[in-house]
Amino acid sequence: MAKGASLSGFPEWLPQERVVEQQVMDTLRSIFELHGFLGIETRAVEKGSSLLKKGETSKEIYLLSRLQDLGNENDEPVEERLGLHFDLTVPLSRYVVENSGAIAFPFKRWQIQKVWRGERPQEGRFREFVQADIDVVGNGDLPSHYEVDVPLIMVEALEQLRAYGLPKATVHANNRKLSEGFYRGVGLTDIEGVLREIDKLDKIGADEVSRLLQEECGASADQASACLQLAELSAANGSELREKFDALCEAQGVDKDGEAYALALDGLNTLGMIVDEAAAIRPGAVIADLKIARGLDYYTGSVYETFLEGVSSLGSVCSGGRYDNLATQGKKTYPGVGLSIGLSRLVSHMLGSAQASASRISPAAVLVAVWDEEHRAQSNAIARALRSRGIATDVAPIAAKLGKQIKYADKLGIPYVWIPSTLDDNGENTAEEVKNIITGEQIPADASVWAPQEEFAKRHVEVKNAD
Amino acid sequence: MAKGASLSGFPEWLPQERVVEQQVMDTLRSIFELHGFLGIETRAVEKGSSLLKKGETSKEIYLLSRLQDLGNENDEPVEERLGLHFDLTVPLSRYVVENSGAIAFPFKRWQIQKVWRGERPQEGRFREFVQADIDVVGNGDLPSHYEVDVPLIMVEALEQLRAYGLPKATVHANNRKLSEGFYRGVGLTDIEGVLREIDKLDKIGADEVSRLLQEECGASADQASACLQLAELSAANGSELREKFDALCEAQGVDKDGEAYALALDGLNTLGMIVDEAAAIRPGAVIADLKIARGLDYYTGSVYETFLEGVSSLGSVCSGGRYDNLATQGKKTYPGVGLSIGLSRLVSHMLGSAQASASRISPAAVLVAVWDEEHRAQSNAIARALRSRGIATDVAPIAAKLGKQIKYADKLGIPYVWIPSTLDDNGENTAEEVKNIITGEQIPADASVWAPQEEFAKRHVEVKNAD
Repeated sequence: MAKGASLSGFPEWLPQERVVEQQVMDTLRSIFELHGFLGIETRAVEKGSSLLKKGETSKEIYLLSRLQDLGNENDEPVEERLGLHFDLTVPLSRYVVENSGAIAFPFKRWQIQKVWRGERPQEGRFREFVQADIDVVGNGDLPSHYEVDVPLIMVEALEQLRAYGLPKATVHANNRKLSEGFYRGVGLTDIEGVLREIDKLDKIGADEVSRLLQEECGASADQASACLQLAELSAANGSELREKFDALCEAQGVDKDGEAYALALDGLNTLGMIVDEAAAIRPGAVIADLKIARGLDYYTGSVYETFLEGVSSLGSVCSGGRYDNLATQGKKTYPGVGLSIGLSRLVSHMLGSAQASASRISPAAVLVAVWDEEHRAQSNAIARALRSRGIATDVAPIAAKLGKQIKYADKLGIPYVWIPSTLDDNGENTAEEVKNIITGEQIPADASVWAPQEEFAKRHVEVKNAD
Repeated sequence: MAKGASLSGFPEWLPQERVVEQQVMDTLRSIFELHGFLGIETRAVEKGSSLLKKGETSKEIYLLSRLQDLGNENDEPVEERLGLHFDLTVPLSRYVVENSGAIAFPFKRWQIQKVWRGERPQEGRFREFVQADIDVVGNGDLPSHYEVDVPLIMVEALEQLRAYGLPKATVHANNRKLSEGFYRGVGLTDIEGVLREIDKLDKIGADEVSRLLQEECGASADQASACLQLAELSAANGSELREKFDALCEAQGVDKDGEAYALALDGLNTLGMIVDEAAAIRPGAVIADLKIARGLDYYTGSVYETFLEGVSSLGSVCSGGRYDNLATQGKKTYPGVGLSIGLSRLVSHMLGSAQASASRISPAAVLVAVWDEEHRAQSNAIARALRSRGIATDVAPIAAKLGKQIKYADKLGIPYVWIPSTLDDNGENTAEEVKNIITGEQIPADASVWAPQEEFAKRHVEVKNAD
């Protein structure tokens, strides 16, 4: 990370690190567009009323106030004030409703943008970071095949990022209907509460979750145990999932003719379909994992988290789900399904453990030397000739000794130094030459035809410590 | 603009409009990198102390407060609070100081990011917009050739944007030393005040500026008139500039042996050099225009504004200057010169007057039809084969009648519909076919070898109403 990143939670990269982030963003965008997703950018701000649906007040949000209005900011209710978005799903929902007459449904969109969390500064927590999202939003209804398509596209995207040092990714899927049906089936009613506690399982462990389920959600010890047993279920295919689930329901005495079981079955079928269809295309890429709960409250069906092999400390790097009631306008609903990559976190890992970096700092392949300031125009003309053929070129900042100019190129990783013609001791023009300062090779060259060797032509991302 | 852009000053584009903005950003980035500039991204927030140097309080800034901390935000002094950056130059200065040990100087950087102005909502004013900046920052000193190089790169970049409907751009340059020397030469002392009033010339006219100079800056009627005469000077080359300036000094009785004239001469020489060197490379691209003042107070030498032919309403679309004292660390200074394109404003013009738009809404070249939901996997496999060869492909959202699927492709501007093999009435497999729904041509095709015709392969930007 840039040395002086002086504000905790607000990462900034050095130029050679930013190249990695830029490359990751470019790669994701190209994969998303290969699948026909449309790019949008939404404003950074939303009204408090959008950010705080259902009157939540626990959200970590940054509110804005005008410096010119200092001291009066609380005259306006929070709902009317502007705040920075904390994700890209809430803005998408607002955008879809506002532009429903102008876009075609299902609306497949990608979006790569910064989001903010108004948290206290904490070690290892970002308060500003980039997310890369894809969502498919329907008008009124949304076919369930998108619940397989979308996570598979994300797996494909993450697979592409392995070139930059990312370990193998696996999507863990669950379904909220399945969880809710089961919880109701064993007699629980505070479904949101149970989901919230189960979501903490990886962080605080089973004993603590059991305690919280009993203290906070009115569960008996047996009910808490049932919830934890459900969370332990995982399966690589639909029939195994069905078998394990039914065995658990049997053991817990869930009424198989009841409404709760029917709801669970609905979720179970979708989840089984997801796992089976994904397995047919990318075996092992998507597994059913019934402890996945997701903190955000707008999910109504499938939920997903994604983990990297051998890097449990990062947590989920790509999460999402299906939300049927987030975007509504009168009686109209716009159900959606989407996943969001925590891009800054990935880049952090690439730059850190994987030691990804730019092959050179400067995009330039050539530095044109300058004999003296009176002849700068000559060097500029050479640079123009090279650039006109797409060769990124810099010109030496000052007409220092040639050795110093070469040092400047070396510092920036620029592989070639162009040595313009000059007058030799006999008053004759010397030849134009270009020196590869990595190999040491120096040859006569003409700026209107010369081209760098392929391996030195473009800056790219290198990974020292690939997984 | 996206129909429901519901928040005044916060523009949002429809997907087909966003393509134009994205293309503009990609083009600028490629030009900047062609010239060896390094890309960085800084955090969106800065401390109040950075945003409000010299204790200014007139700035239009958005300050942040945590929702969880509501009501206590004014416990902290403004200097310690976080605010959204209003430009990319102040963040660059902070970044350079923080990372001075890790970057090579002169530091040539490009940066394309959103900035915010915490203004009241006003017709035609953006409160959130994208800027595209290049700057060169030196360590201790900065060669003056960058004062020609940087505006010329911007002219080249804006020239590239003419493909998207931008009219011809001309950079108008001035120099603050020249202005200050002249103002002092005629006996004025409130230099910042005079610059501030002169900056309003295009908006409020000469009479009003004259009145303000007299009322606010202690100028006599003659002094005000002298300032206005200076502002009227323009020249296409250095010698013409020198002639006109000297004639004015003569007429105003400026002492040619005084310090004030020496200061003016310093600025005059730089400005003359800029205009002459630029004319040698791109005649007419950069002119001397002595009314250019710039509102921002951190400029110390060259200042630039850029105007589009025939579009005076947009004002300057690319502005900047040289700042010698913005970034400092103890006794160290990091002088810089840079220009900033108001990208959102340009895109606004392209989408509006020039009617630039994406050639199609979807990036996909092909929509694979689906016979029935049971055969979706067959259509998915075709899509995978096409994508594996880089052909952006979508799959029909539902297995509706073929006509409806074609309509969906048409709505998104997808030129080809792929018709998978199916069983005909005799139980025989039909041929795979692909239909160009624009030309009507339908041919047998194999997804492992077929490719779209070049004109239909990639989405691009079209301009209906080129300048």
